[in-house]
Amino acid sequence: MNQDYIKPDAWSIIEEGFDASHVQSSESLFSLGNGAMGQRANFEEQYSGETFQGSYIAGVFYPDKTKVGWWKNGYPEYFAKVLNAPSWIGVNVHINKEALDLNTCKEVKDFIRELNMKEGYHKRSFVAVMPNDLEVKVTATRFLSIVNDELGAINYEVEVLNDDAVVKFSPYLDGGITNRDANWEERFWETLAVKAENNQAFVVSKTLKTEYHIGTYMQSEITLDGEKIQVEGEVDKTEDHVSIAYAVKVNKGEKIALQKYAGYVTDMNHKQDSLISAAKNVLEKATKSGFAQLLQEQKDAWANIWEMADITIDGDVKAQQGIRFNIFQLNQTYLGKDERLNIGPKGFTGEKYGGSTYWDTEAYCIPFYMATKDQQVARNLLTYRYNHLEKAQENAQKLGFDNGAALYPMVTMNGEESHNEWEITFEEIHRNGAMVFAIYNYVRFTGDYSYVPEMGLEVMIAIARFWQQRANFSKNKNKYVILGVTGPNEYENNVNNNFYTNYLAKWCIEYCIENIEKIKADYAEDYARIMAKTNLEAEEIAKWNEVAKNMHFPYSEEFGVYLQQDGFLDKEIEPVNTLTKKQRPINQNWSWDRILRSCYIKQADVLQGFYFFEDHFSEENLEKHFDFYEPITVHESSLSPCVHSIQAAKLGRMDQAYTFYLRTSRLDLDDYNHEVKEGCHITSMAGTWMSIVEGFGGMRVVDGKLSFTPQLPEQWNSFSFKINFRNQILKINIGKNETTFSVDGNEPMNVLLNGEQVNVQNTVNS
Amino acid sequence: MNQDYIKPDAWSIIEEGFDASHVQSSESLFSLGNGAMGQRANFEEQYSGETFQGSYIAGVFYPDKTKVGWWKNGYPEYFAKVLNAPSWIGVNVHINKEALDLNTCKEVKDFIRELNMKEGYHKRSFVAVMPNDLEVKVTATRFLSIVNDELGAINYEVEVLNDDAVVKFSPYLDGGITNRDANWEERFWETLAVKAENNQAFVVSKTLKTEYHIGTYMQSEITLDGEKIQVEGEVDKTEDHVSIAYAVKVNKGEKIALQKYAGYVTDMNHKQDSLISAAKNVLEKATKSGFAQLLQEQKDAWANIWEMADITIDGDVKAQQGIRFNIFQLNQTYLGKDERLNIGPKGFTGEKYGGSTYWDTEAYCIPFYMATKDQQVARNLLTYRYNHLEKAQENAQKLGFDNGAALYPMVTMNGEESHNEWEITFEEIHRNGAMVFAIYNYVRFTGDYSYVPEMGLEVMIAIARFWQQRANFSKNKNKYVILGVTGPNEYENNVNNNFYTNYLAKWCIEYCIENIEKIKADYAEDYARIMAKTNLEAEEIAKWNEVAKNMHFPYSEEFGVYLQQDGFLDKEIEPVNTLTKKQRPINQNWSWDRILRSCYIKQADVLQGFYFFEDHFSEENLEKHFDFYEPITVHESSLSPCVHSIQAAKLGRMDQAYTFYLRTSRLDLDDYNHEVKEGCHITSMAGTWMSIVEGFGGMRVVDGKLSFTPQLPEQWNSFSFKINFRNQILKINIGKNETTFSVDGNEPMNVLLNGEQVNVQNTVNS
Repeated sequence: MNQDYIKPDAWSIIEEGFDASHVQSSESLFSLGNGAMGQRANFEEQYSGETFQGSYIAGVFYPDKTKVGWWKNGYPEYFAKVLNAPSWIGVNVHINKEALDLNTCKEVKDFIRELNMKEGYHKRSFVAVMPNDLEVKVTATRFLSIVNDELGAINYEVEVLNDDAVVKFSPYLDGGITNRDANWEERFWETLAVKAENNQAFVVSKTLKTEYHIGTYMQSEITLDGEKIQVEGEVDKTEDHVSIAYAVKVNKGEKIALQKYAGYVTDMNHKQDSLISAAKNVLEKATKSGFAQLLQEQKDAWANIWEMADITIDGDVKAQQGIRFNIFQLNQTYLGKDERLNIGPKGFTGEKYGGSTYWDTEAYCIPFYMATKDQQVARNLLTYRYNHLEKAQENAQKLGFDNGAALYPMVTMNGEESHNEWEITFEEIHRNGAMVFAIYNYVRFTGDYSYVPEMGLEVMIAIARFWQQRANFSKNKNKYVILGVTGPNEYENNVNNNFYTNYLAKWCIEYCIENIEKIKADYAEDYARIMAKTNLEAEEIAKWNEVAKNMHFPYSEEFGVYLQQDGFLDKEIEPVNTLTKKQRPINQNWSWDRILRSCYIKQADVLQGFYFFEDHFSEENLEKHFDFYEPITVHESSLSPCVHSIQAAKLGRMDQAYTFYLRTSRLDLDDYNHEVKEGCHITSMAGTWMSIVEGFGGMRVVDGKLSFTPQLPEQWNSFSFKINFRNQILKINIGKNETTFSVDGNEPMNVLLNGEQVNVQNTVNS
Repeated sequence: MNQDYIKPDAWSIIEEGFDASHVQSSESLFSLGNGAMGQRANFEEQYSGETFQGSYIAGVFYPDKTKVGWWKNGYPEYFAKVLNAPSWIGVNVHINKEALDLNTCKEVKDFIRELNMKEGYHKRSFVAVMPNDLEVKVTATRFLSIVNDELGAINYEVEVLNDDAVVKFSPYLDGGITNRDANWEERFWETLAVKAENNQAFVVSKTLKTEYHIGTYMQSEITLDGEKIQVEGEVDKTEDHVSIAYAVKVNKGEKIALQKYAGYVTDMNHKQDSLISAAKNVLEKATKSGFAQLLQEQKDAWANIWEMADITIDGDVKAQQGIRFNIFQLNQTYLGKDERLNIGPKGFTGEKYGGSTYWDTEAYCIPFYMATKDQQVARNLLTYRYNHLEKAQENAQKLGFDNGAALYPMVTMNGEESHNEWEITFEEIHRNGAMVFAIYNYVRFTGDYSYVPEMGLEVMIAIARFWQQRANFSKNKNKYVILGVTGPNEYENNVNNNFYTNYLAKWCIEYCIENIEKIKADYAEDYARIMAKTNLEAEEIAKWNEVAKNMHFPYSEEFGVYLQQDGFLDKEIEPVNTLTKKQRPINQNWSWDRILRSCYIKQADVLQGFYFFEDHFSEENLEKHFDFYEPITVHESSLSPCVHSIQAAKLGRMDQAYTFYLRTSRLDLDDYNHEVKEGCHITSMAGTWMSIVEGFGGMRVVDGKLSFTPQLPEQWNSFSFKINFRNQILKINIGKNETTFSVDGNEPMNVLLNGEQVNVQNTVNS
């Protein structure tokens, strides 16, 4: 853990002192994003030490040729990779012709960097003693505008402390970029044009195969002690690279600064042949505003986000910092404006995992976006899957299903499957159920049923068809069974009758039938259209029903619990606490077969079902299952602690709930898994939010109303959060002795507090 | 199928007419080998059409860096690849300065090639009309000497039919060789030296990483109408390549020929610094003998092999050709001289599959070598595994086992694991049992018990330790279970309690304990040594016994059969004949998950157990299991038909037995699977031999005697084979009305014929 290196602070992530061994971790933690593009916290100036460069554009991917040892029928031919994009942040700096490079300086003093989460910028300052003995003070501020999401801005200020000197800034664009995780060491980009004119420069590139066209652009200005000065730029162009250098003789103590406005325009939003003119438009507005005004707009925009999304925790600065870091990163990754985009597991903080979309979105992220943004954002996330329905049907067909059955991909960019481990790609089919659960969850929370007749029912029908075809009748059991699956617990592969999968399959079918009936009754036109489109007949529905009604669920009479899968009790069942430290985490210390045949569970599996369908089971039943499964769960997925935290809170086990909470909220800041340098765990951050709101806040939707059963961790004085519920903003503050509610605007709101009705007018104490 | 292109012939494989689309298949089928090296049937002269060049040296491999999509703990870092070695066969031919190339000739007439299996050579002749309108008749004869296994010889004869012309032969050596199946397009060879002097040339190379040093060498002579002539050679050397060209003006109708003597010397048999002098020694002897005498020696040596190994089939030339092709290829691949070598699944006919050694050797090949060679050969194959015991122990340790437990690798060259699919590498552990079964089989057949105290018991103890640790006690079943395995039927992965695996595990332990007791009683010194070395105590043996005695075997009361694994009856069980043609073979038409959850079986699994342990089950029981499993078996492994053929014959179902026999014996000649161009299925060829000897011949060992229950397929008039049993050679001829035996030498031999004692003196009719 890096526990000591990130300073506790309520609103900022702060690193003090330069330590080369922290560079790559900080590059992840201090990443910036604005939903449309993202940037690891690489230094602007040259750095010859170990670094992991990363610039990313949302939605721009490359189909890297699949790499497997042994090909299996059905594997996709390629793996959609998040692409490292042309670099726009670079500003090389020379002082008296010597390059500034923190790796080669004699000394780096007063190094401090801050990710200001409240205002949405990254700032770094230091004093470097260069090999030529010049002492240089640098302050570099950078942000990615969430007001204009094609724009990034940098203010790079240099002061030579001990002499007069020539300072040369060489801002550049670099199109010659590779991915660290390329399967075949291929290049993913082709540079089409490199231009420079009037202090502006452009690199037009396209991705190979997918042919996304990208314009990377920049324009720079120079100020001396805050006053704009004119300096002749010197252009240097190569095939992939362009720089415009500005050299200025400055006196000791003068502050020379470069403002670089730069970023991407893409053919997702502009015509291919007008990328340069689109970039010029952005630059014109940006230079007109200037750095200070753009930064002020950025602060205002972030203030708006925080106004709605913030969670305050009083009395525990590390917990406060943790939750804000999670909320900040989620908002940097996805702002919900564009239904073509989704939430990658590493966001814009690294390349690991291809594709942008996992079932994480439906199971973990939607609740956060639904409650902290306009409900259109969650609707966009659902629409994303509706738009991929045809691809999901093709995917199922490839695997032998027919009649419009759909299997959503495990990992995707554009709807096509991008994963290739047979035990996951073909068998972790429970993901299909999460698509339907998200629709159910959306309707339950927002009360907006219109999505179902418009789009949702078609998705549900295709998924019901999948489940009916995927199950088979076991004469032996006289029940329907689902063989050969991998559940959420990926430490089991190719098992039969995973309880969670079977339960979800049954529920998907029943919920689909319920909605067919509702739409038949209330939306006659939609009903007619959908029936015509899907060719759905009563006979087929009867077949679905037959499967749903006769689904097999493995159960142990002895323990009174549903079994994770058939045969689970043949394992040696010993609690996790009997393992030695050297064996943990087991995924780094045990061979795969040993993990598979052990009883140890990676993340909530049966308990994930109890989480989704809480109402279907009594609290006593939950407790029995929690006590059976949690002790054999190793929580080696970042998605595991949050569900357990919520359930522990529900069972009144606040100590345990709090322990799980800490593990999820500071996972990256404290680098529990020694891997933060590869990027942050973005999707699990939404789970952290759920731990507070659903866990400690006990928030649920009950009969169309928000309901709370708050509990305060004893380490805290109070905590508060806001919920956008059906277009009303409710604020909840949970203190040691009381819970207070307030609602924005004049409409009152009825909520339940510990089962009692509360009418929230503006501020009500309970 | 290529059914029409290979001519039926009792002793030869013959192709008539030149068809470029057959070139790669013929390159496999007409391959030559001598146990120490092998050569695909590539043309000597330049060929610009589609070809798959392959020259191989037994035991020389390269550790290709593992290629997997998703790394799992425990995977080996590399994959031992059979290496395509420097080429020694090349002879470029120019006529009046135009290159002879069958791909560019105006016409190729009278093309015929023959693999003469009786005499062990490959001969090709044709008349080519060259672009310059010269008509050239070529006859090229080639063999790999089994008398001196470092030597190959070529006689390449040219006659220009329609004019006088200058014929230039350019025999060459080429060290710049790559593998088709390289994972990373790396080169595997480094050329250390290229030399040419006195009509001799040498390329000294080493393999990268493994550092095998190889000398590839050649010397050529020229004859005109059979008379040796002196021609000045012209040397051409590059970094990796050397040629010595001989140009001769010949008159129309004169026959000019080049004899090339060439091959490999390696540092497995010579000192690294004396490779060139070793090659010179070989060349001196070879040139002294000359091509004709060397070929005569080759014929004599093959006559010796056939004398013992031949199976004659009267009345069915295709069946005769098929079995001889199998026997020929097995002998080309492995002659049993060198205990460092083993039997690769493609022999020397292609690169597919890395490594040389699979459980095929123990389960399928040993019986053939045991019965047709000196028993030392089978002992060498057992010793090979004994020599790898330490590596097998390291392998098990890597997977979490201790106390000297051994897991033999799935695929290996030098004892280290070279396979990386978790479901096979880590879970197809039944291979461990085949190691012990081979020892049992060897002792049963040869009566030579000495291997057990010398080496075998240590192997057995290490394997018993593995099984005891690998099983776990299921409280639920009150039995020991073996979870997470893949059986011989690789169309199931990660199943629990595979009957075959569990049965083999129990048997291995019991057989080991039986041998410990025997050695304790009869070999006190060995016993003391082994106990000291293994630290085996009575307490541990008691633990083994506990596992063996309480092993769980899945069983169906309803069907009265052992189940392939737990839960097998939850599948939809429909016979293979309900599948449509388009679905077959399922491994090319179904996605992997569909195959896994189907009932379809790739190769004998429960039935493999019934084959190994025939005595443990009644014939009625075999019939019940055969009737349950065979109809759902797709036989998509080349190892499947032979076991079923033997069992069908035992059950008196000769039609079915014959159908299975045909499928195995002409698998490559008729190219059932459209893949022979990648190489032949060498190890399954031993299964073909078993189909005849154990299936139709009904040969077994009963109480130390050979026993036969012969049945003649109705398509045949008779068949005969020889068995080397305990150093006596028995010949069996099975005709329509009688079975006759004869024995070499003066010692009589007692055999059982249909359960009756027969005393074989020299020729006995029954």
